[in-house]
Amino acid sequence: MPTLPPVLVDIKFNPEGVARALETAFSDRGSINLANPADRGRDLSEAEYALLWKPDADLFARAPKLKVIFSGGAGVDHIIGMNGLPEIPIVRFVDRSLTTRMSEWVVMQCLMHLRGQYAHDSHQRQRQWAKLIAPEAAEVTVGVMGLGILGLDAVAKLKVMGFNVIGWSRTRKEIDGVETFDAGALDSFLGKTDILVGLLPLTPETTGFYDSGLFKKLRRNGALGRPVFINAGRGKSQVEADIVSSIRDGTLGGASLDVFEAEPLGSDNPLWELENVFITPHDAAVSEENALFRHVETQIARFERGEPLQFLVDRAVGY
Amino acid sequence: MPTLPPVLVDIKFNPEGVARALETAFSDRGSINLANPADRGRDLSEAEYALLWKPDADLFARAPKLKVIFSGGAGVDHIIGMNGLPEIPIVRFVDRSLTTRMSEWVVMQCLMHLRGQYAHDSHQRQRQWAKLIAPEAAEVTVGVMGLGILGLDAVAKLKVMGFNVIGWSRTRKEIDGVETFDAGALDSFLGKTDILVGLLPLTPETTGFYDSGLFKKLRRNGALGRPVFINAGRGKSQVEADIVSSIRDGTLGGASLDVFEAEPLGSDNPLWELENVFITPHDAAVSEENALFRHVETQIARFERGEPLQFLVDRAVGY
Repeated sequence: MPTLPPVLVDIKFNPEGVARALETAFSDRGSINLANPADRGRDLSEAEYALLWKPDADLFARAPKLKVIFSGGAGVDHIIGMNGLPEIPIVRFVDRSLTTRMSEWVVMQCLMHLRGQYAHDSHQRQRQWAKLIAPEAAEVTVGVMGLGILGLDAVAKLKVMGFNVIGWSRTRKEIDGVETFDAGALDSFLGKTDILVGLLPLTPETTGFYDSGLFKKLRRNGALGRPVFINAGRGKSQVEADIVSSIRDGTLGGASLDVFEAEPLGSDNPLWELENVFITPHDAAVSEENALFRHVETQIARFERGEPLQFLVDRAVGY
Repeated sequence: MPTLPPVLVDIKFNPEGVARALETAFSDRGSINLANPADRGRDLSEAEYALLWKPDADLFARAPKLKVIFSGGAGVDHIIGMNGLPEIPIVRFVDRSLTTRMSEWVVMQCLMHLRGQYAHDSHQRQRQWAKLIAPEAAEVTVGVMGLGILGLDAVAKLKVMGFNVIGWSRTRKEIDGVETFDAGALDSFLGKTDILVGLLPLTPETTGFYDSGLFKKLRRNGALGRPVFINAGRGKSQVEADIVSSIRDGTLGGASLDVFEAEPLGSDNPLWELENVFITPHDAAVSEENALFRHVETQIARFERGEPLQFLVDRAVGY
């Protein structure tokens, strides 16, 4: 039996977690793990498959025979603009667990804003008994931007929790029981939205997209009083100076951010201490290594059987 | 047309909210609002219907002709032990909005424990970027105690969010896709539970029910490490000294409490500052006056048409 070339792995995750999970992955062909010092200088010229997350700049020059690129996460903005990116299929990571975790985070953040968790928490620290009469979910409209696999799952779960949910995507999608909008109808989507949930990929169009001009178009005087901005897509889609000024001047009543223009978020950043702003350190939906490797194994097997790859990136739109 | 006797209203809620909502309620017969000083001395002897929440002790003596008692909330422990309680039907308040709000609170609390919100919040206040790898909902079993209307709605929504959910009730209930337990199987229910959600009514059997002996029977070494106790039923069902000691000695890894042995919770109570404990001031599901009055109007109309009352209390079991 001919020896299959090992899978090239260059994912800037936690190195111990990756090394441990790789021990049992790709048993038919093995792997070259560039995070492993012993592997760093190895010949990559025969590699056919590469699993990448923020790969080395010279990677594609070193591996000219790649047939398929796998992204280590749901997004591909970390590779899409790289010099020397070959014209081969790119597969994003889609996984039930990744989707479920993202929806957990989105639903929890929406509920925390609905139910006044920031105020409850402040009262608790002051040992103060202060009932809050919150609106119920049905009185609040959550507008989800980005209706891919993550967005659709969040929409379905937010609806079950009772929220009124509307959706926006670049090209309009039909979702049963959900009013949807496309690029041309952005302003009317924003004008109906009390809680904006951003799940957009990073592309030139979405870079710096969430700014004070956009926040001003969200619904005023909804059941929450002022609109809320939630972002679990990409940090570079948001203008953080505008989030800060919009919270301070009352354009926004709150925010939840898992992603940032620069990560890790610096300790001197004013976002940490803004009123009614919840910060998480880009851990809303962390790729779990074992699930990631199973997914890559599955797609390689499909590819080698001549079946179509799943979760292919459309390079023309950038996601 | 004969004049109908006004509805007797004695609900210890926010007086302004009650007075405002009463202006448009019971238009066919009016009301006597004992929270209104001008009504306090009125003759109650002809009243047929009473809407009560923690009523005056002499109420039943003053209103001997009552035909139906309506509770201002889902619980009836505030009247069930009163002296002079007549042998007439008691109707609890069941309302879509009340149910939805309770499930919002329960799901949010479960998600906050799942996702390490207490730790995230501490890190945020310290301006510290610290990723947490939480288990996903499917790895955690939520055990819901009390499978009435509130419990069933919470079970369904927790399942949609991905949690493994099991249920317990005094007499066993069948729920599609959910393992259920009855009084005799309490220990095996507790032994499978990572997050215990209490939605039990207050009865002699449930008074002081959640104690350190019970907490010790919850599953150890589940995906959250240590079990979590969540109570939105009645405060007198919990032994607060045991919650404090169980959090401190690690029997419990966290708690969420909306109800307390004595309310409001005193500012010197140690519960306010326990690690990974979320406190809300009995506002998880507040009865909304307009919805309450519509419900009472509906039930009175049913009763006067000779149809059976809904949401009747079984006095033998106390709820």
